[in-house]
Amino acid sequence: MFFTALITDLYELTMAQSYLENDKVGNAVFSLFVRDLPPNRNFLVSCGLETLLEYIQRFKFGDKELKYLESLNIFKDSFLDYLREYEFTGNIYAVPEGRIVFQNEPLVQVEGPLPDVQILETLVINVIHFQTLIASKAVRSYLVSKGRTLIDFGLRRAHMPEAGLYAARASYIAGFEGTSNLLAGMKFGIPVFGTMAHSFVMVFEEELSAFRAFARSFPERTILLIDTYDTLEGAKKALKLMKEGVKVVGVRLDSGDIQELSKKVREVFDKEGFKDVKIVVSGGVDEWDIQRWLTAGCPIDAFGVGTKFITSYDAPYLDIAYKLVEYEGKPKYKLSPGKATFPYKRQIIRHYAGGKMEYDRVVKYTEGGLVELIVEKGTLKKNLPTLRQIRETLMEELKSLPEHLTSLEKSHYPVIVENNS
Amino acid sequence: MFFTALITDLYELTMAQSYLENDKVGNAVFSLFVRDLPPNRNFLVSCGLETLLEYIQRFKFGDKELKYLESLNIFKDSFLDYLREYEFTGNIYAVPEGRIVFQNEPLVQVEGPLPDVQILETLVINVIHFQTLIASKAVRSYLVSKGRTLIDFGLRRAHMPEAGLYAARASYIAGFEGTSNLLAGMKFGIPVFGTMAHSFVMVFEEELSAFRAFARSFPERTILLIDTYDTLEGAKKALKLMKEGVKVVGVRLDSGDIQELSKKVREVFDKEGFKDVKIVVSGGVDEWDIQRWLTAGCPIDAFGVGTKFITSYDAPYLDIAYKLVEYEGKPKYKLSPGKATFPYKRQIIRHYAGGKMEYDRVVKYTEGGLVELIVEKGTLKKNLPTLRQIRETLMEELKSLPEHLTSLEKSHYPVIVENNS
Repeated sequence: MFFTALITDLYELTMAQSYLENDKVGNAVFSLFVRDLPPNRNFLVSCGLETLLEYIQRFKFGDKELKYLESLNIFKDSFLDYLREYEFTGNIYAVPEGRIVFQNEPLVQVEGPLPDVQILETLVINVIHFQTLIASKAVRSYLVSKGRTLIDFGLRRAHMPEAGLYAARASYIAGFEGTSNLLAGMKFGIPVFGTMAHSFVMVFEEELSAFRAFARSFPERTILLIDTYDTLEGAKKALKLMKEGVKVVGVRLDSGDIQELSKKVREVFDKEGFKDVKIVVSGGVDEWDIQRWLTAGCPIDAFGVGTKFITSYDAPYLDIAYKLVEYEGKPKYKLSPGKATFPYKRQIIRHYAGGKMEYDRVVKYTEGGLVELIVEKGTLKKNLPTLRQIRETLMEELKSLPEHLTSLEKSHYPVIVENNS
Repeated sequence: MFFTALITDLYELTMAQSYLENDKVGNAVFSLFVRDLPPNRNFLVSCGLETLLEYIQRFKFGDKELKYLESLNIFKDSFLDYLREYEFTGNIYAVPEGRIVFQNEPLVQVEGPLPDVQILETLVINVIHFQTLIASKAVRSYLVSKGRTLIDFGLRRAHMPEAGLYAARASYIAGFEGTSNLLAGMKFGIPVFGTMAHSFVMVFEEELSAFRAFARSFPERTILLIDTYDTLEGAKKALKLMKEGVKVVGVRLDSGDIQELSKKVREVFDKEGFKDVKIVVSGGVDEWDIQRWLTAGCPIDAFGVGTKFITSYDAPYLDIAYKLVEYEGKPKYKLSPGKATFPYKRQIIRHYAGGKMEYDRVVKYTEGGLVELIVEKGTLKKNLPTLRQIRETLMEELKSLPEHLTSLEKSHYPVIVENNS
């Protein structure tokens, strides 16, 4: 995507200028962590690191940006020169993507000369926050979907196209099979899905003519939207086509009483022996709906999940912060009420019992734990995993998630932050 | 920003191909409207049109996009040729930005050959939805701020940088004075604000040294963050500096009991005659906080409003749709339960009583009403207003908003959709 180093808050740059003027250019460590999980989240899925590294690599101040900054009459020439030369040359310690993480755990730790790592604050929070938010929401649908197919239908109500793109990535990691978003298909190789909207049906004088026309255009991928006028009537028209020998892969229901309609539609097809026709459900679907419908035995094969996951509507943000934890080897704390921080670069040690996660300890950093050194002196230490590998990491990880955390109901996982300062 | 026509859902293109194959290329009108307002919104602010027009102008399928689409083995060569030549040549009727609008009112209506206007669906919804969502949220803070300064501090928790950029635009229209977002400053000329974070204070051994260092760097724009350790102690250190003759424009409080602390901090300064020092409050602020604090007489001069407005956390999406309402001059309806639509291209007629809005009627389109013909045959009919003009439009418009709608509490405005089909 488009990128400029001006994707930042003014105060990052005022601070950086003052650091340079006051000789505060020693080695600093900032830590990105989530203080408390939202009410409806039992864990988070680490996500967005690859995007962040890509953005940091492109975090450069060009002529246009510098000219704008100069026009503000805030910055000295020497500082603008610093920005012109800016390039990240520090270290990044992070939990790789697709891992399960919890409150107070350092997702990303950035180390380097103080001004250099300060000015990345806004970017680091923004990029990791969003994909972690969305992956952590999407995985809840995955956990209750019992093998049904989940597809991201959210682009239209994502908070601008860029959010749609990266939500597609995050939801694919979290177990979705694909997306309706073509840009995500092109950029990330995520499988794309989609057939028709109500407008298609409405343009034809007869619903049946619309179905017939679409089937002619896409004989191998006909999924018919049957709820434009009357869902059961729509199902019967789909049936008529099938009996004529037209191949119908599935039908989609986007409104109405899904619990009742999905069963009745299934019956319409099964009675005539069309047991392979899939039923796809969309329209404001979230994980609670999926759980309710599947518990009620609804014969639904796939869900188009959209608005509610792509906005993470029940928790549209995380209580995430990027805090100074170490400067020139000394611990740094903040004591503000409710916003206290833990000092030092940290490692996460996970303890298991019977193959299941039992508790985590957050300790002073040493190698060997969830946190890995990803970027050293500005250079990537090893190749990042592919999107598919990240997805597999999470699928594997979910197997060791304790039962009570897999539930949609609130539960708690213990994280012990050792105060070894 | 970066842009590609692949910012769309696959089904827009499958439908378009089938339209072309089935000779459904007649004149169509699609209407973008919000069905119901969220619980906490009494009205919406129309926002995002300029961005949409910019994106539509750039909605082109290049070689890379076409190659990807070809690789899907869904599309015929003739359709890919259609996409290669695609250019919007239709009409756009819209409510200009900065107007107050309500449920069931057509914000944007797109008219042209069916496939051409169908494939814009995802983009039209996405772009108008987000800025309308954010302007409608931000204006609530404006309505209760009684002349205090509001600043957008939200970038870090926006859903990716692009959302941060356009939220800055939307909130400026809605009455904010500025933003911390430098890209929004450069791109839109919005005033930028910002000074220091907790990390700045923590790097120095003494809070006072941090304050002194910052004031040296920015003698004309020193706003000190005083809550890192103890807010009142922080205020006293700021006072010490002022008594030494250092110019302090203001102090910022980002945590704690704001109601109590803002009053005590004010007292610290006033007692010594520093009545001009501003108090800025940030940290999870929303419109309910602003109203509560100002009602309680808190001496707060400015609010940094962030996460809660930039995610529209209490209503992170609108029930917005882009529906076919007319095809070849004939009305088009949808009957799905709870999702019925009104046919025909529409106009909004607003009725006033005593200078205040009384009710709206949504009627068949004729000139003269809130809806204007903005783009005719692909060409902009007149220059769009500047950002400042849009902001002034809204400020003027708010004067005719009935009292009960200006409240944060839920109220209702009547919109009569005439069923003159």
